[in-house]
This record gives sequence, C-alpha cells and structure tokens, in this order.
Amino acid sequence: MRTEILKLYPDREDVTLTTYLPADSAELTRGGKRPAVLVCPGGGYTFCSDREAEPVALRFAAMGYHAFVLRYSVYKSYPVQIRETGKAFLMIREQADNWLVDTDRIALCGFSAGAHNCALYANCWHTPVIYEFFNAQPEMFKPAAMILGYALTDIIYMMGRERFLDGDAQRVLAQAREVFMGKKDPDESLMAEVSPTRTVNEYTPPGFLWATAEDTLVPVQNTLLMAQALADKNIPFETHIFENGVHGLSLADQATAGSPGHLNRDAARWVELAQAWLEKRFALKMT
Amino acid sequence: MRTEILKLYPDREDVTLTTYLPADSAELTRGGKRPAVLVCPGGGYTFCSDREAEPVALRFAAMGYHAFVLRYSVYKSYPVQIRETGKAFLMIREQADNWLVDTDRIALCGFSAGAHNCALYANCWHTPVIYEFFNAQPEMFKPAAMILGYALTDIIYMMGRERFLDGDAQRVLAQAREVFMGKKDPDESLMAEVSPTRTVNEYTPPGFLWATAEDTLVPVQNTLLMAQALADKNIPFETHIFENGVHGLSLADQATAGSPGHLNRDAARWVELAQAWLEKRFALKMT
Repeated sequence: MRTEILKLYPDREDVTLTTYLPADSAELTRGGKRPAVLVCPGGGYTFCSDREAEPVALRFAAMGYHAFVLRYSVYKSYPVQIRETGKAFLMIREQADNWLVDTDRIALCGFSAGAHNCALYANCWHTPVIYEFFNAQPEMFKPAAMILGYALTDIIYMMGRERFLDGDAQRVLAQAREVFMGKKDPDESLMAEVSPTRTVNEYTPPGFLWATAEDTLVPVQNTLLMAQALADKNIPFETHIFENGVHGLSLADQATAGSPGHLNRDAARWVELAQAWLEKRFALKMT
Repeated sequence: MRTEILKLYPDREDVTLTTYLPADSAELTRGGKRPAVLVCPGGGYTFCSDREAEPVALRFAAMGYHAFVLRYSVYKSYPVQIRETGKAFLMIREQADNWLVDTDRIALCGFSAGAHNCALYANCWHTPVIYEFFNAQPEMFKPAAMILGYALTDIIYMMGRERFLDGDAQRVLAQAREVFMGKKDPDESLMAEVSPTRTVNEYTPPGFLWATAEDTLVPVQNTLLMAQALADKNIPFETHIFENGVHGLSLADQATAGSPGHLNRDAARWVELAQAWLEKRFALKMT
C-alpha cells in the first residue's frame, strides 16, 4: 500500500489529498487498474473529522479499491470546496497510470457536510464553475457514483424547519450557513444553488444514500428529499434509513467511534450494503 | 496510516515485516494503544501469497487494529519460520510505544501453511526453541489469540490419508514435508512435533478456526482435529466450517480473488464472525 499526503496548494498544510493505494500483485490485479473512492469527511465546514476520514478510506481499500481522503478548506465559502474536489479529480487523473487508477470509476463518499459537498459536486462537475476554473475538459471531473451518509442536502428546507430543530442543530445550521454561504442571510437563489436536492440533473451519477431516522442534527428528511430528487430525475439510487442512531456515526463501529454512542450494529450494516451496491458498478476485473 | 517494510535480516529482502498502522487521532484513540494482528500468508512454505497478505492486513486495519504482514522464509525447514514469528513479536514490542501497540493484545492470523506456522507458534512461544534462541523472557513472545484459515494442522493424519488425496494435494503435501521437515521421510517424533493438534497446551491462546468442507488440498479434518485438541485442553475457541469453497479463499471477496472461484459470499462471512469474536477480547478502549 502506498500512502502519501499531497497538498492541493503548495503553501497550505490544511488542504490535502491522502492516498491509500493497495499494491498491485501478479496474483491479483496483475497490472490492471482499480476503481477508486474519494472520501470527504464531515465537520460542518468548520473542520474535517478524522472519524470520517482514514478509517473510512481503509474500509474501501479493504474492498480492493484505491481510496483517497480529501481534506478540503474549512471556514471558507462556496464554491471553494467543490473546486477542491475537482482539483482532487485532476490530481488523481494525472497520476492514474502510475497509481493504476481506473478513472472511469471514481466514486465520491461523503458524510454530513462532506456529503453535502459530494452531492453539490455530483450535480455540477460538468458546469463552468468547475471546468472553466481549471481550463480543462468537463469529462476530467466526472464521478461514477456517490455515497452520501447523513447528508445535508436542502438548505431551504432546513431554514423552514429551523424553529423545530434543537439548540445544537440550530447552532450548526447557522454556523454552516454563515461559513459556507459567507453571509448570515443569503438570498433564496444562493440557497437553492447550494441545495443539491434542487440541482439534480441528468449528469448526476447514481447514488447510495443512508441516514438514521433519529438524527437530530441533520434531520433525515434531507436524505429523503435527495432520494425524491434522484427518483424524479430517474437517477439510479439506493437508500437505507436505520431507525436508531445519532448524527455522525461514520462506520458505526469501533474503528470510527469516538464514544460508545457511535457504536451501532444496525446502522453499521450500511457499509456492507454500500459494498454490494458499489460492486455492481465497480467490480474488479479478473483476468 | 504508516506503512513500512522492515527486514528481519539486514542482508535479506525476502523476509520482512510490513506495518499497517492506523493513525492516532484526538477524536479516536487519543494517544491510546491499539491491539494488533500479525498476518502470516500461506503458500505451502514455497512462497508467501500476496492474496493472503496485504488485503487481509487492510481488513484488520479497517477494524481499528494495527496490522502486520510477516513474510517468512520459504524453502527453509523448521523451526526457522516460528523463530521469525518470534522475531516479529520482538520487533513489534521494541516499537510499541512509538507505534502505539497494545502488546498484551497481539493476535496471529494465518492461512494454510501460514496458519500451520501460527498454530505451531501459538503452542510453543513459551518454550526454549523461541526464548532461548533470542535470549529473551518468554512473556515477550506471547500471542493473545489465533485466527486460522484452512490450516494444515496434523502431518501424521495427512500422511495416513495420503492415498485418498487427489494428485495436487499429494504433491503439495510431499513438497511441504520435504521443504518444511528437510527430509522426504521424517520420523514420527518430528512429524508429531510439527503437528499442532498434538502440541496444544495450557499456553495456547484462544482460537478462531475456519475452513470449507470441500477443500481438497488441505482436508477440513485438519481444522476439526485442531478444534478437538483445543476442546480437549479447554482452550476457548470458535469454529466455522462452510459447506462450499475451494482451498485458499482468503477473504473470499474481490479484494483477494485471483479468479472467480475465489469469490464465495457464504465463506466470506468468516471475516465478520472473526471480527465479532476478536472484538470480545480486542475491543478498543474508549476514553
């Protein structure tokens, strides 16, 4: 396995792409390319959670995929994070022959704010905000699938629901709004632009969405609304809502648990469900 | 994650300990030590199979454990491989504070010939063949658990059954005997000494054993006899025999499959069963 931390900006330590590249072997891949998963941790755009970073990448690497963790800019406003996601795609493509990455099969996997970023990117990778910025062909940025865990997906819905949220959730929403949209009271058009439920389109890749119905920080309706949007546009998707479990479960096992409340045997099944779903598209080629 | 390849002998490239060390994090282990799993790939003592090496280590790393792969000497006779296993324990202990390894909780995980090596070592880590050779205290070499996949465990049984084996199995057995015991016709006492079913004792750690009933290369009786031996000595153990599946399944999923015959959804469940079994002893401490 090759692990390496690459900087997105030469002069910044905080924005990085970390590689987890299972070794080639004459008994296994025999020089062939592996699909990849790019992991975007959550953290309300104020930090990138370790709990949703390396352990998740290791789990995908253990499935036989190349894995990457993107630590994107925090306390910076849209669209810097989706552009950093685009930059990660360019960096992976640039090294694809060296790293043996199958660039037609790169999935995004995000959690919470990281899932929000993945969903935004999944809806706009083919638009000028990405490809003009890098002066590159749109196809360079194409994701093949997205896996969204307890995603924030609809800012307008969240605003309307704000008074029903608990205190923690209100604070997180206010902070995310201010940090991510750069203003306390963004106008409706910006809120729609950064609500992935409202921007799903024919270029959006297939999605695997999961959440817990008890999540009080990012209500489960966010995931259900995103599923509705994908269904409305005939984008293939799969959704699993577990009855119990707090926000931020990550793998829901000891590898990612910061406290006992993060252990959840039922919700942890999302990983094997996602594995089966992904394998329908990402099966390793056997020669 | 820190991965590094360490040599057991300064002048040899073939015998190595590879580290897979998940990073410490203020959100997770918070400076605490992780248990570890030392993986011994199989290969009939004539090679160390990639299919039973890194992908298996990554799977244990994804469970939150430190993982190591030992590539031991091949085409060399007993007891060099168990001593190399002992050397690996010393190397891990030496770096335990640096790597944050909980040395009271190091499990062995082997496959086929690698499982044979693990079982042999598990039965004799406390004896002079190991500790006198290194001039160290016996406790330095103590394993906390063993996970044995389609292990070769009883040479005398295999000899008695030789004429019932198919041609491939006969060749493998003859080769292993010649390579591992250094002679074509070893005497009964040496065969007993290298048959772990016959040397289980009170110092043998708890075991998780799995195999497939259809295995024609190392018949399933090897695993059943080892389970009997553990039961007879009151060593805690768990055993899972899957009805179907060839020899050498490793994880039995695409991460370790060299051909479609290595994909086996039923047998692949050994991993989650072993995970649950291991977690009873190796649960990460949450602070």
